[in-house]
Amino acid sequence: MSAPPPIPDLPQPPSGRFAGGVHYYPVRIYFEDTDTGGIVYHANYLRFMERARSDMLRLMNIDQRGSIESGEGVYTVARIAIDYRMPAYLDDDLIVISHVLEVGGATCRMDQRVMRGNDILTNGEVTVAFVSSTGRPKRQPKPWVALFNRIAQGESIDS
Amino acid sequence: MSAPPPIPDLPQPPSGRFAGGVHYYPVRIYFEDTDTGGIVYHANYLRFMERARSDMLRLMNIDQRGSIESGEGVYTVARIAIDYRMPAYLDDDLIVISHVLEVGGATCRMDQRVMRGNDILTNGEVTVAFVSSTGRPKRQPKPWVALFNRIAQGESIDS
Amino acid sequence: MSAPPPIPDLPQPPSGRFAGGVHYYPVRIYFEDTDTGGIVYHANYLRFMERARSDMLRLMNIDQRGSIESGEGVYTVARIAIDYRMPAYLDDDLIVISHVLEVGGATCRMDQRVMRGNDILTNGEVTVAFVSSTGRPKRQPKPWVALFNRIAQGESIDS
Amino acid sequence: MSAPPPIPDLPQPPSGRFAGGVHYYPVRIYFEDTDTGGIVYHANYLRFMERARSDMLRLMNIDQRGSIESGEGVYTVARIAIDYRMPAYLDDDLIVISHVLEVGGATCRMDQRVMRGNDILTNGEVTVAFVSSTGRPKRQPKPWVALFNRIAQGESIDS
Repeated sequence: MSAPPPIPDLPQPPSGRFAGGVHYYPVRIYFEDTDTGGIVYHANYLRFMERARSDMLRLMNIDQRGSIESGEGVYTVARIAIDYRMPAYLDDDLIVISHVLEVGGATCRMDQRVMRGNDILTNGEVTVAFVSSTGRPKRQPKPWVALFNRIAQGESIDS
Repeated sequence: MSAPPPIPDLPQPPSGRFAGGVHYYPVRIYFEDTDTGGIVYHANYLRFMERARSDMLRLMNIDQRGSIESGEGVYTVARIAIDYRMPAYLDDDLIVISHVLEVGGATCRMDQRVMRGNDILTNGEVTVAFVSSTGRPKRQPKPWVALFNRIAQGESIDS
Repeated sequence: MSAPPPIPDLPQPPSGRFAGGVHYYPVRIYFEDTDTGGIVYHANYLRFMERARSDMLRLMNIDQRGSIESGEGVYTVARIAIDYRMPAYLDDDLIVISHVLEVGGATCRMDQRVMRGNDILTNGEVTVAFVSSTGRPKRQPKPWVALFNRIAQGESIDS
Repeated sequence: MSAPPPIPDLPQPPSGRFAGGVHYYPVRIYFEDTDTGGIVYHANYLRFMERARSDMLRLMNIDQRGSIESGEGVYTVARIAIDYRMPAYLDDDLIVISHVLEVGGATCRMDQRVMRGNDILTNGEVTVAFVSSTGRPKRQPKPWVALFNRIAQGESIDS
C-alpha cells in the first residue's frame, strides 16, 4: 500500500515561547515516559528539561547541530539537582518553565521546573557547560552569552 | 528563587490531526533520540509511532488512561515490521503518517511511516491488540471499532 | 526457522555485590545509552543508578514487584543531585558504587557514584521515599529499615 | 563524604556466550524498561536485541567504537520484524537468543528471540547493514564476513 503524501497544512512540532525572559515549553506524557509504578519514570524529567533547553536555543537561533558538526562545541550538563514533589501520569499535559539564573564564560545556570496546571511536580537547578569536541570546557561564543544575558535580565527572545 | 507562575497564553503540546482518514503527527528530534552514530537510534521510531497512535486515540476521544484504571483494557503491540530507509538527525522535524488498514474484533492493523518533507525515513506496519488487565486478548469496545472503521474508510475524526 | 531451545549453562544477568556495606554494580555502555554528542546522554546515569538500587534491594531479598502488586508500596525518588565530571563512551565498562548515608522512617538517603576504573564520572546523592499505591509517603517495612541500617553501618548483605 | 575506591574483585558487566553458533545474552528487567500498563514497553525489546548484537560483535573481537571513530563504518538496522507473544514484567530474567541466518556483502540477517525460561516472549528477524560514516551502504570488512559465516554454520566463537 502507498500512504498519501504529506498534506499542505501539516501539524507543527511542539514549540515553547519566551515571556518576560522566562521560557515555557509543553510536554504531553506518553507510555514511553511511564513505568510500572503507574507514574512518569524519574529520569524522564531530565529529558523534558533538555527538550526545553534545546527549544530555548532554537528560539535564540543557536544551531546546536551545526555547532557539533563544525566542531565548534556542544552544551553538556555539568550539574543537576531535582526535587520530586508530585508524580505525573499518562496523558498529562505539562509545562517546563525555565529561567536563566547566571551566565558565566563557559557555563549557564538555570532554574527549571515542571508543572501541571498550578502544581509544581519537580523543581530543579541545572548548570550546563560548553565544551569542545574533545570534551574540554570552552568559552561560549560571545553572541550567545549576550543573548543569555538579555534573557537573564527578563527580555524575551523571539526567533 | 521562585519562578513565575504559568502564563495565560501557554504553548500547547504537540497534536496531530486527521485528513481524509489519515493521521498526521509531528515529531522534533532531541538529543535523547540520537545515538553516538550521529543518527536517531532505531528503536526510537517505535516511540514516535506509539505517540502518533496515542494521539489518534486522543482525537477519537478514547481515554487510554481511564481504560487502564477502570480495568477495561489496554492496547498492546502484537506485531511490528519496519523498513529503515534513511536516517534522521538532531533537530529534524518529522511527520508520522498513520493509516488504518484493517479493524478486527480485538485488533487493528495500520500502516505507519515516518517522513521528513517528502522523504520516507521508515515504513512500518503495526498490529495492535486490545487486552484485558490480565493480558488476555479482548474485544475492543464497539464504539471504538465503529470509529476505527470510519477512519479506515477515509473519514476524518475531529475531537 | 526454529531457534534452538535455551541451553543448560545460560549466561547470567548482571548482578552487583556488597563489600563492607558498599554496593558495587557493573554497567556496560550500549548504543541506546549514547547521544549524537558521542557520549552517554546525561539522563541515563539516573537509569544506571536506579538499576544499582534495584539490585541492592534484590540482594536484600526485598521483592519490589511483589510490594507493588500487593499494594504494600514502592520506592520513588524524592531528590537527586548529580555532578557530571567526565563523560562515558560506547562500550565502556562502568561501576556504580552505592553507599547508604541515612535511613529514616519513610526515606533512605544514599551516595551513588559512577566510575570507570579509578575515574569518577558522576557523583550523586539520592533520597528515595517509600510511598503507598496512592503516592502518599509511608513508613518502610521495619525489617527493611533494619537491613538498611545494617548496610549503613558497614555490614555486607548477601542474599 | 568520600566513597570507598573500587575493590579488587569487582562484579562484571553482563556478557553473553556462543553455543553451537547460537548466541545467548541475559537481560534483567528494571523500572526503566516497563510502562504504566505494568509490562515491558514494546520498543525496549529492540534495545535488548541491540545489546545482544553488540555483545556478539564484542565476543568476535569486532571493535564497534573503533570502527566509528576511524570512519570505517557502523552497523545500522535496515529492517526489523517482531511478533510479541507474551509480556515481560519488572525483575524478570530474560535471555536473548540470536542466530545468524544469512551473511551478504554489506548485510547480515539474523533471527532474535527473547525468552523467559521456555516461554518465547518475542520472536524477531533483523537485517543489519554496514554503512559508511556518511550513511552509504558499504561492504563489511572481509574478516568480519568470514567470522559471521563461521557462526552461521554453527561454529561458536570465543574471544
